[in-house]
Amino acid sequence: MDISSKSDTTIAVEALRQFVVNAFERADLTPADARTGADVLVMTDAWGVFTHGTKLLRGYLRRLKAGGLHPQGQPRVAAEGPGWAIIDGDSSLGQVTSVFAMQTAISKARNCGIAYAGVRNSCHFGAAGYYAWLAAREGLIGLSMANDKPSVAAPGSRGGVTGSNPIAYAVPAGKHRAMLLDMSVATVAGGKVYAARTRGEKIPNTWLVGADGRPTTDPAGYPEVGALQPAAGHKGYGIALLIETLAGLLSGAAVTASVGNWLWDDGTQPTHHGAAFLAIDINAMMPAGIFRQRIEAMVDEIHQAPRADGVARVYIPGEMEWERYEISTKNGIALPSDVVASLQEAAVMVGLDFQKVLP
Amino acid sequence: MDISSKSDTTIAVEALRQFVVNAFERADLTPADARTGADVLVMTDAWGVFTHGTKLLRGYLRRLKAGGLHPQGQPRVAAEGPGWAIIDGDSSLGQVTSVFAMQTAISKARNCGIAYAGVRNSCHFGAAGYYAWLAAREGLIGLSMANDKPSVAAPGSRGGVTGSNPIAYAVPAGKHRAMLLDMSVATVAGGKVYAARTRGEKIPNTWLVGADGRPTTDPAGYPEVGALQPAAGHKGYGIALLIETLAGLLSGAAVTASVGNWLWDDGTQPTHHGAAFLAIDINAMMPAGIFRQRIEAMVDEIHQAPRADGVARVYIPGEMEWERYEISTKNGIALPSDVVASLQEAAVMVGLDFQKVLP
Repeated sequence: MDISSKSDTTIAVEALRQFVVNAFERADLTPADARTGADVLVMTDAWGVFTHGTKLLRGYLRRLKAGGLHPQGQPRVAAEGPGWAIIDGDSSLGQVTSVFAMQTAISKARNCGIAYAGVRNSCHFGAAGYYAWLAAREGLIGLSMANDKPSVAAPGSRGGVTGSNPIAYAVPAGKHRAMLLDMSVATVAGGKVYAARTRGEKIPNTWLVGADGRPTTDPAGYPEVGALQPAAGHKGYGIALLIETLAGLLSGAAVTASVGNWLWDDGTQPTHHGAAFLAIDINAMMPAGIFRQRIEAMVDEIHQAPRADGVARVYIPGEMEWERYEISTKNGIALPSDVVASLQEAAVMVGLDFQKVLP
Repeated sequence: MDISSKSDTTIAVEALRQFVVNAFERADLTPADARTGADVLVMTDAWGVFTHGTKLLRGYLRRLKAGGLHPQGQPRVAAEGPGWAIIDGDSSLGQVTSVFAMQTAISKARNCGIAYAGVRNSCHFGAAGYYAWLAAREGLIGLSMANDKPSVAAPGSRGGVTGSNPIAYAVPAGKHRAMLLDMSVATVAGGKVYAARTRGEKIPNTWLVGADGRPTTDPAGYPEVGALQPAAGHKGYGIALLIETLAGLLSGAAVTASVGNWLWDDGTQPTHHGAAFLAIDINAMMPAGIFRQRIEAMVDEIHQAPRADGVARVYIPGEMEWERYEISTKNGIALPSDVVASLQEAAVMVGLDFQKVLP
């Protein structure tokens, strides 16, 4: 996920949340679901991950209005056992289904020590890290992942074979903020390639394969032709297929080429995205205080590690996001201009005026 | 893991296995444990992953004789719940503890749908993929991972912060061989850097950081100075810390710098490696036939994907290893010369003659 550049449009976290709640309610979501959707998108912005925050609202509203997303959809447990559940998302907002699924996994992990929740009939779920963090916030280790329409090549393939298949984990870290990684299996986000195209710049030869399936430094044809390269070659590709297995194959969701593109494909039809959530209950296995001591010691050790010339800090995964979160909650969220533009359009779609929300 | 070059020393799988069993028995392992250790090492060679197969026997025998590995050690369940167990390896052979742990996870997953087995007081466990495959062989999805003494830098660190922390998964794939990925979190194996040093060659600037913590193309100082770069930068580093969490922190094992180097550190002392094994019971969640159809369709789709110019095939993870396995079981294993030399030394350590085993 990329961090867009800052703008001068700064908005309080609560004001942004209320705006998104209002917008979702006007698109016929229940107040509870509207709140859930807003929580996910605004937390993501507060982390500074603007590519996956409220910028997505416009596209979700479009799909809610077109009917591919069901405003009154209700995720439900389609099948379950002691440590697992398969959730049918009923094509409701991906964030609503995903929160429901992670809460199911957390609840079952408290009984079994670990639990898996597979999701089908979902849609794009935004930032994977949010759901992992839901578990960490309650003292558990969380993992979340989803499949998507192919955009990432396999080693040797000409076009996309897997989705960018996000995966995230979060671990409670005592006196420190939760350790939190949220990544895709591609070398870089497609948006970064497209931005280089817009600026007329070359890209590193590890980002993209061109029309011939070979690495290219020319982003000119993307996204119409070419595909993202998997991160670290066969490693990123291999992890993509693990995610496809847990989020797609095992949940009964659509897989690879049969997943819909939530933004561009027919808005009247469900996308059938799959997702998977795992929760591991630390407290079942080790006194919480001991785990806390152990992870604090590891984090402290890494913070004190010798640094490369010119490097000020060695970061723990998620540390940058949490520092931006502190600033966001204190000073408001400095929204990039592309997010503001997207929110203005979203507002118009549901008869709101985003300018009125700004200070 | 790297694949070494072939030699003319070809040996039947069963002959190699019997030799390793004999060697382990002469180092005071029980017949059952000797067989387990041999199964892991020989299967790894049969896959053509010679860096992690019987080449390791010599080092294990040395540690068994020195006492850091306990020949008669008995892994046991130190704590457990419905879907989890913490295994104390009693400093027995890492392979013995790891097979015990994965079998525990498989058994518990059959009750809960998913299970986690954390391992402490273990040692180097060889190829992570073997344990994942144990689960896939029985129709479950398997994951395995381990921590190790730091050798891989974090983004911005000067030296190693995490181990190369192997992670593997395996998924039964119906008419196809199990999908199987076994990777480290480093860009490349240290052996590859060392080989370039030996040949006096430069390396790509994504493999290593030098004494100053900066990427370098000069392997001359490795491994005395420098550290491997994490695969895909912060992504490989982040996955390394997930593995450290599940294999080290949560199991009660040693973590990062406190893990011993199984090959070079004091052979009289345990290394306190940690490991983690997860098993997911497909049959609990979906009829086996349905899952089989779904994964076969995915594999077929990938096999038929358009290919880059000059590329003959798009591989599924593990497919290359399984093709080498077929050749190994049919024609024998063509051992590289470094493996033969290592086995000859191992034989001498326990009063055997490796030459007599060869055809």
